[in-house]
Amino acid sequence: MNIVDKLIDNTIKTKNPSVVGLDPDIEKIPECYKKHKAADNPFEAVSEVIYNFNRDIIDTVSDIVPAVKPQIAFYEKYGSYGISAFEKTVSYAKEKGLVVIADAKRNDIGNTAKAYAEGHLGRVKLLDGASEPSFDNDFLTVTPFLGSESLQPFVDVCLENNKGIFVLVKTSNTSSGEIQDVMTSEGLTVSQSIAKYVALHARSFTGRYGYSPIGAVVGATYPEEAARLRTIMPKSYFLVPGYGAQGGSAKDILPCFNPDGLGALVNSSRGILYSHTDKKERSLCSREEYLQKVRDAAIYMQTEIYEALSNAYPDMVY
Amino acid sequence: MNIVDKLIDNTIKTKNPSVVGLDPDIEKIPECYKKHKAADNPFEAVSEVIYNFNRDIIDTVSDIVPAVKPQIAFYEKYGSYGISAFEKTVSYAKEKGLVVIADAKRNDIGNTAKAYAEGHLGRVKLLDGASEPSFDNDFLTVTPFLGSESLQPFVDVCLENNKGIFVLVKTSNTSSGEIQDVMTSEGLTVSQSIAKYVALHARSFTGRYGYSPIGAVVGATYPEEAARLRTIMPKSYFLVPGYGAQGGSAKDILPCFNPDGLGALVNSSRGILYSHTDKKERSLCSREEYLQKVRDAAIYMQTEIYEALSNAYPDMVY
Repeated sequence: MNIVDKLIDNTIKTKNPSVVGLDPDIEKIPECYKKHKAADNPFEAVSEVIYNFNRDIIDTVSDIVPAVKPQIAFYEKYGSYGISAFEKTVSYAKEKGLVVIADAKRNDIGNTAKAYAEGHLGRVKLLDGASEPSFDNDFLTVTPFLGSESLQPFVDVCLENNKGIFVLVKTSNTSSGEIQDVMTSEGLTVSQSIAKYVALHARSFTGRYGYSPIGAVVGATYPEEAARLRTIMPKSYFLVPGYGAQGGSAKDILPCFNPDGLGALVNSSRGILYSHTDKKERSLCSREEYLQKVRDAAIYMQTEIYEALSNAYPDMVY
Repeated sequence: MNIVDKLIDNTIKTKNPSVVGLDPDIEKIPECYKKHKAADNPFEAVSEVIYNFNRDIIDTVSDIVPAVKPQIAFYEKYGSYGISAFEKTVSYAKEKGLVVIADAKRNDIGNTAKAYAEGHLGRVKLLDGASEPSFDNDFLTVTPFLGSESLQPFVDVCLENNKGIFVLVKTSNTSSGEIQDVMTSEGLTVSQSIAKYVALHARSFTGRYGYSPIGAVVGATYPEEAARLRTIMPKSYFLVPGYGAQGGSAKDILPCFNPDGLGALVNSSRGILYSHTDKKERSLCSREEYLQKVRDAAIYMQTEIYEALSNAYPDMVY
């Protein structure tokens, strides 16, 4: 099964084209998660807290969202112990039927790009010559700064292993234009020329809804550019950051979608996990109260996006 | 002590401005390293083989090179077990007096970039509110695709923790020009405009040799562009890939240096580790024979670069 079809099936089932970002921040995780007896090694203790926290978040939202997006930086900062929590999170989310997007923004030159692609999306060689999946994420975010030669190994590994990528095309942050908006000699922005590459590879790898898992990251904070990128990449799935905490509204995300209500997945991380921004509240609330807030925030986001979509696209498919 | 001063002291002591890339590839590591009793878990077994291999390489070259550059992709592909081998490699190399450059090409938007910077170069928060170093690398390679906002957290963490970065400015691969050579409206290439940002931050953070650990990756494969970038970033240290296996010669790396023979560090990974390219040779040679080949290759590289430098720059400082 094409992984983008699973993503779309989940989206239709939940009427929810959004993804919960799993960005564990030890300073924001409620105190109640830190009280159980954790391991003696302080890095292992953080790893346990992160995994227990994520498991609860996944249990709380797995029936109402199609996918989760762990941001690997927040795990990797704790070294091998953190990566272990990341791996367990990926496995647990997949067990619960969620699609997992590893947000790692990896890339390097060809030989090294292949190592990242194999590790995150493919299979790795072991001592006995056999090969096994390693992270086994469903999707990975990938940086295009080193050009098409660096993207090719990811495309190849996706085709072989039925996985997907979201190539950074136009990011949501304030300084994204410094490189991404520069005009090339063909009269396209850097973003648009990367989009052309993505579209080229997306065409040959579409699922039964007509979409491709060779996708793109397109920020909600630049809706006019998103509309142009949608035209260049009609079949690619978009991962859309920038909604909520970063300032993008439900109206801003509309150009990322096609009239079928598909083609994009809107991310929210801090807005779902840390809606309890008050420090006092974080230290007092119970696990049940906290998880109710998480579920409420996820439902609020679903409702807001679904209403905006159904108003804009009355013929959408769900 | 400014970390760039340690790098330069090591370079002068060894008369060697080069760095050995630690890119463990299970298919190329000699068979003799795979014969000892490894752990039952196949990923843990790979991790043990990689670490034992690296320890031998480090012991073999630590008196003749100033630094090593583990490429994290080759560790990360084996998940938390691989990252554990990476961490142990970093510690061991530092114990031996080597400067460690983690080649990870990380970056993300501000909040997440900070997590990468803290994890690789700074300190991370633990459950009790204390903070400790995590990877504790000396230098990290960083991708600039998301603009200056994404680079700032790395610069800040370097200043606070006396560490360094090499920002990707002009990479050595064939498709690097697709984005990096595009002309901006100021008449600079994308590479040159990133170089201006690097130079700006490098200025305020120089050590006793006048160099800054806010550095740049500049490929040996584009010597004319390297000469222009050297002019824009006079005080930044350059990490120079592309020598040897990728086609850059000793003459090609000259424009990356200043006339003092400093300012750049030339990397070779495959050329040092896998000079025994023949599969039959890999399976037959003893540990001692193999390590002699590694040492010979490192000395050959030192001699070649040192001769080219002393011919071109008769007033160099070592």
